[in-house]
Amino acid sequence: MRKILIIGAGKSSSYLIKYLLDKSESENLQITIGDLNVENAKKLVGNSSKTNIIHLDVFNAESRIAAVKDADIVVSMLPARFHIEVAKDCITYKKHMVTASYVSEEMQDLDDDAKANNLVFMNEIGVDPGIDHMSAMQVIDQIRDKGGKMILFESFTGGLVAPESDNNLWNYKFTWNPRNVVVAGQGGAAKFLQENQFKYIPYHRLFRRTEFLDVDGYGRFEAYANRDSLKYQQVYGLDHVKTLYRGTMRRVGFSRAWNVFVQLGMTDDSYTIDDSANMSYRDFVNAFLPYSPTDSVELKFRHALKIDQDDIVWDKFLELDIFSAKKMVQLDKATPAQILQKILMDSWTLSQEDKDMIVMYHKFGYELNGAKHQIDATMVAVGEDQTYTAMAKTVGLPVAIATMAILNGKITTPGVQIPITKEVYTPILEELKTFGVIFKEKDVPYLGYNPLNI
Amino acid sequence: MRKILIIGAGKSSSYLIKYLLDKSESENLQITIGDLNVENAKKLVGNSSKTNIIHLDVFNAESRIAAVKDADIVVSMLPARFHIEVAKDCITYKKHMVTASYVSEEMQDLDDDAKANNLVFMNEIGVDPGIDHMSAMQVIDQIRDKGGKMILFESFTGGLVAPESDNNLWNYKFTWNPRNVVVAGQGGAAKFLQENQFKYIPYHRLFRRTEFLDVDGYGRFEAYANRDSLKYQQVYGLDHVKTLYRGTMRRVGFSRAWNVFVQLGMTDDSYTIDDSANMSYRDFVNAFLPYSPTDSVELKFRHALKIDQDDIVWDKFLELDIFSAKKMVQLDKATPAQILQKILMDSWTLSQEDKDMIVMYHKFGYELNGAKHQIDATMVAVGEDQTYTAMAKTVGLPVAIATMAILNGKITTPGVQIPITKEVYTPILEELKTFGVIFKEKDVPYLGYNPLNI
Repeated sequence: MRKILIIGAGKSSSYLIKYLLDKSESENLQITIGDLNVENAKKLVGNSSKTNIIHLDVFNAESRIAAVKDADIVVSMLPARFHIEVAKDCITYKKHMVTASYVSEEMQDLDDDAKANNLVFMNEIGVDPGIDHMSAMQVIDQIRDKGGKMILFESFTGGLVAPESDNNLWNYKFTWNPRNVVVAGQGGAAKFLQENQFKYIPYHRLFRRTEFLDVDGYGRFEAYANRDSLKYQQVYGLDHVKTLYRGTMRRVGFSRAWNVFVQLGMTDDSYTIDDSANMSYRDFVNAFLPYSPTDSVELKFRHALKIDQDDIVWDKFLELDIFSAKKMVQLDKATPAQILQKILMDSWTLSQEDKDMIVMYHKFGYELNGAKHQIDATMVAVGEDQTYTAMAKTVGLPVAIATMAILNGKITTPGVQIPITKEVYTPILEELKTFGVIFKEKDVPYLGYNPLNI
Repeated sequence: MRKILIIGAGKSSSYLIKYLLDKSESENLQITIGDLNVENAKKLVGNSSKTNIIHLDVFNAESRIAAVKDADIVVSMLPARFHIEVAKDCITYKKHMVTASYVSEEMQDLDDDAKANNLVFMNEIGVDPGIDHMSAMQVIDQIRDKGGKMILFESFTGGLVAPESDNNLWNYKFTWNPRNVVVAGQGGAAKFLQENQFKYIPYHRLFRRTEFLDVDGYGRFEAYANRDSLKYQQVYGLDHVKTLYRGTMRRVGFSRAWNVFVQLGMTDDSYTIDDSANMSYRDFVNAFLPYSPTDSVELKFRHALKIDQDDIVWDKFLELDIFSAKKMVQLDKATPAQILQKILMDSWTLSQEDKDMIVMYHKFGYELNGAKHQIDATMVAVGEDQTYTAMAKTVGLPVAIATMAILNGKITTPGVQIPITKEVYTPILEELKTFGVIFKEKDVPYLGYNPLNI
């Protein structure tokens, strides 16, 4: 009997738990799920006899240590900042560990200890980060193995609403943390590399510097630049690449409309509005427009943003009902970003029957035998419902598969790591295919930004 | 013999020292000037026998205390962050103190001690802050004294180049710290009050929300909002005013052109560019524009900012030579703001014969006997040369006059204060007139933003 401890039974744990339960007989697993809220876990588990649900507060050292000691491997699905105490216990009691989170400095500091104890500490093995790493490195390694030299890498991911549930003018609903969407792109200029030139886009231009991406069977998307496209340059071994760009995907038209909020200052999270609780949505919009005793908020809005009478972007704002004088903000001393989030949640919250969708698009440019080539790889995952979402699937399945691969001695290289080696990504990507998480690769003419070397 | 210690003989001390030297016989003054660089002071003093120039490092407690002990009053013209040790010595040795700087928290904390020792600690008695306080409070008090109720206060100041030296397309040169100009408006949304509504302008819209101001004999100016227009609301007793707005004046057209730098991200001071030392001005501009193998930086610039072929704003950028592929940035790991500052200093540095100009414009709206009225007050000061600048005049003369008024017992109310009481502003504004610092007041029709109460 092998014992798996899963800490955190939130939104992204449904597929993870289902996968492991399905294997519990054949793989002889005993699964313990620890959460502050045991009801969450009960819903996901049903009446399996192979699971043990415990109330677990990670800040209670005694119960945390007891749970870790009793496991063979620990999966932490908590927010990233809560991993470190668990990770230290895993070192002390010599347990492997798996998370879907970015490697924090504190986590990285455990690398020597993990190696000394022959422990695998696998991180960034969800969807983004996770599937993006694995699917990118697989193609990059293939290109290198055949003697190609990488010259361009672009990678885009979007958490969106599935086509069958895509029924608003923004072609967008909140499929994950709404706050991250509202403040996306803030905190500094986006930096990327284009044909050997560093390029910088300030926040207030970010949503007007998009590019289009077509995905077979799913139509056209657009993407805006992530803040730091260079983050994995060294890790991926792309030091001499000419173009390196990472972005976030939306349906076409989203960014142009979103830019209106940015321009007005409605996404600002750096100050609070004193009397926000008593503001109507209309008052909130009006706070970013000049005073006028005669002109309507609507006309001032159109004028400030130069929105023509017949511009279809206008209907997107009407759909959100942001000019309502009756709907009240009802948030005390809120930032503009918090107020905007509330307004958007009125319209963009998924209903119970809505399905979400994860889309990923990689472009790999390379030189081989003096010629330039390009491979485009795309992946689309659609959720089943509000429990078995595409997000939970693409986050949870790689975590689950990696957990089993470590338990079964298929992934053995110790240390604090992310899934960028063949040993790791090959079995995981192969098994993900059986769950419909499939990358379609195709050779396309090399586009880049200067294909003719002008 | 009364002894005055002036600490700091920088740019803004010329008129201050001249004023006190001119009075040294009649007022029986002994003036000591302390600076790290005694050459600065020597140039300003000439061969007066009434002055004593000493090398003074404010961080050297022994020499600082010795100098303070020997004085009857201490004037600190150092940057604001250097005042506090001097101020504490002034408490210890019971000396009055005068500065042109904003009252820091640490300075405010000395209020009780200053009062207990019957000491006048006068601050914010330069031009802005300083003359703005005094000239505003004089009119506000006059309106109140005749039974009027303030409903609007707007106040604008600009440090500009004098008309006779105004010979570039931006109608602007650096008459003060260039860095402050480049980063002006950053750090949060501008907040102000318009007809009882709070209004917010994000940084990237600030330079497109200007208003025009006409000054008799000097033509038209424009103004953009300061970050916190509400700063002196309570201090001025304007709690129930409907409109409160403070702004910075420029010549018309400056802000629209400056906005291009803001839009591109060239004023960002939050990150550094690694290879900045080896960039040309053209490379720098290009870093904020999309890559193209064929299109010129010029056309990409015009396209990104939607600058038409015949738009006169274009010539302003040509004048700065920002598209030069020969001129090099030569600053190592500089921020965009630092690089832009360097480029601008090539063009906007005052030459020896250039004169600067300070412009101030107040609008006072009030109700009296059921009718609405408005008084507009304007002041223009033009410098003589690069030593006797308008900036030094309008900063230094109020400091000097206040220093004499304290020495002569005309200003006696003790404590840490700013010049907003009749006791202080009346004699100072009166004497400033004799130096040509004159506010022209005129009654104008009440404008406000809703004169008809629609």
